[in-house]
Amino acid sequence: MGSLATEKSVTGWAARDASGHLAPYNYTLRKTGPEDVVLKVLYCGICHTDIHQAKNHLGASKYPMVPGHEVVGEVVEVGPEVTKYSAGDVVGVGVIVGCCRECHPCKANVEQYCNKKIWSYNDVYTDGRPTQGGFASSMVVDQKFVVKIPAGLAPEQAAPLLCAGVTVYSPLKHYGLMTPGLRGAILGLGGVGHMGVKVAKSMGHHVTVISSSAKKRAEAMDDLGADAYLVSSDEAAMAAAADSLDYIIDTVPVHHPLEPYLSLLKLDGKLILMGVINQPLSFISPMVMLGRKSITGSFIGSMVETEEVLQFCVDKGLTSQIEVVKMDYVNEALERLERNDVRYRFVVDVAGSDIGSEAPAN
Amino acid sequence: MGSLATEKSVTGWAARDASGHLAPYNYTLRKTGPEDVVLKVLYCGICHTDIHQAKNHLGASKYPMVPGHEVVGEVVEVGPEVTKYSAGDVVGVGVIVGCCRECHPCKANVEQYCNKKIWSYNDVYTDGRPTQGGFASSMVVDQKFVVKIPAGLAPEQAAPLLCAGVTVYSPLKHYGLMTPGLRGAILGLGGVGHMGVKVAKSMGHHVTVISSSAKKRAEAMDDLGADAYLVSSDEAAMAAAADSLDYIIDTVPVHHPLEPYLSLLKLDGKLILMGVINQPLSFISPMVMLGRKSITGSFIGSMVETEEVLQFCVDKGLTSQIEVVKMDYVNEALERLERNDVRYRFVVDVAGSDIGSEAPAN
Repeated sequence: MGSLATEKSVTGWAARDASGHLAPYNYTLRKTGPEDVVLKVLYCGICHTDIHQAKNHLGASKYPMVPGHEVVGEVVEVGPEVTKYSAGDVVGVGVIVGCCRECHPCKANVEQYCNKKIWSYNDVYTDGRPTQGGFASSMVVDQKFVVKIPAGLAPEQAAPLLCAGVTVYSPLKHYGLMTPGLRGAILGLGGVGHMGVKVAKSMGHHVTVISSSAKKRAEAMDDLGADAYLVSSDEAAMAAAADSLDYIIDTVPVHHPLEPYLSLLKLDGKLILMGVINQPLSFISPMVMLGRKSITGSFIGSMVETEEVLQFCVDKGLTSQIEVVKMDYVNEALERLERNDVRYRFVVDVAGSDIGSEAPAN
Repeated sequence: MGSLATEKSVTGWAARDASGHLAPYNYTLRKTGPEDVVLKVLYCGICHTDIHQAKNHLGASKYPMVPGHEVVGEVVEVGPEVTKYSAGDVVGVGVIVGCCRECHPCKANVEQYCNKKIWSYNDVYTDGRPTQGGFASSMVVDQKFVVKIPAGLAPEQAAPLLCAGVTVYSPLKHYGLMTPGLRGAILGLGGVGHMGVKVAKSMGHHVTVISSSAKKRAEAMDDLGADAYLVSSDEAAMAAAADSLDYIIDTVPVHHPLEPYLSLLKLDGKLILMGVINQPLSFISPMVMLGRKSITGSFIGSMVETEEVLQFCVDKGLTSQIEVVKMDYVNEALERLERNDVRYRFVVDVAGSDIGSEAPAN
């Protein structure tokens, strides 16, 4: 352990260029500020966004970049004004690590919608340094962006809840869709989609999984406990399901038509988009007017909602379905995730890995 | 007056073909049923939809067709089970005259969203006859679809409230947007748009009119009392107005981009579409996700909301801005409306017109 006044040397696994290949990288963490929490990383989930960032799919990547924003760690040091955490606590860090604290979203405790939010990695912190994520031995994070992992939740289980879990929980909470008996659907069965099925089922909903093929029927129904499975190309089945759903959580991250799904919604139903798609999506206005339907979206969740979803999972005995891997497997894991070959989330056992260190320059 | 058991001969002004030209047409009204109200038409507003229907723009027009769905009349006869109305009452009839009474929307008293709703004209009634609208000497309407015009509201003033008025009132009510102090915008300043400005102002909102040109600035600000005027092609003004609006009522009935308007909405803001546009509208998903914005729509309003908006206008001293014309001017009025040459709604003084009768066939 260093002292508060010392910059700590750490090793993370960083991408150096748009190949997105991760390898050890040495850097220093800022001195521990009055409200900072230093954590030893235990586990870190792999989110699809990590691929987009590491490979510069969004055009704004800066290298070297240590990805990872589903971080569970053990507190090893706290600044003098940190009141909520102390050494030994198991805590989580998600997608953002800073916000302006003054705008309307910040004051409404939905800091994820702050226009000046600071991302956990591939961003610049208030001290001017690049932020680096959770595929690293340690992180230093302002206490506002740290949550306690509640008793009863294994740390590797908690990791996917910090992004995928809160991403589905937040809109269901916000839009008043936690009432038992509602009929919902999950479109797309990846990391976020599988959490969607589990969270919605735990809320007592009738859950339909909608997919472009019949391939995932057994896993959706038998493994994840969905109540129904709908193949979007089956016109008869789609017509039979018209006007039946209170909401659809649409996790598809590529261009797709909206009208087939809007037609499944009942009066006041909501199509909630979660995929960042930079190609325009389209619909005709009567599809929303006649039935007062909404096309909306949601972006992760607030810190308060993150704490809530963790406790919700403990209360409901809900677990995420994960494949735990070591750090030296991370590049293969990213490749497999890119071809959707994971059921459903990779979690890197960071503390249990030989994380290595950057090869000295010759 | 005929007796309940008699079919009444009436004259309306009907379109015979897709030219949309209206001329006298004789037909009979059904015998007055137990729950029917017979009314002598006093006034009938002209809505843009009347042009679409008369000219078969939507491809489903049947002729002869008597348009008109903003009808104010005097009750002249009621069926034996009619409890709410009696002869001499001044009443209104709007866009729909029937519904299934059994579906979820009907049971929730939002019968305008019933899939089996019956339109006031260009539809088929339960007895198999065509429905005919308010450009006629009389109508017979089930009491469920009749509202009382409250004291203090002139009948010609009430006419536009039965479609345009309730169309803007309903979504503001439904989406919880009646709170004073909200910031709203009206996109498009036609019959619905001008009611939007007046209704929103009466709710105590800060109201911006958004238009494609500066032409209507004076009338929006001075005549209608808008607080601000925004030209959509003025990029600097649009950028300065970013993240500032709680809602936009979008009355534009032709294809237009959505993203410039989505960017004006603040966190949780709503873009409420009111124009039936059969060409796809498009947007990119981050525009709704980052700010949890909604693209939604609304279709007229319920009978309960129609009663509410009439009383709201009495309470607030709100009047519609109309140009009253005689029936022999209706074709010119339709032409002027089509080129947007009316401030803001034509209302036909049906009872005060020589309505004529159909020329006998040779």
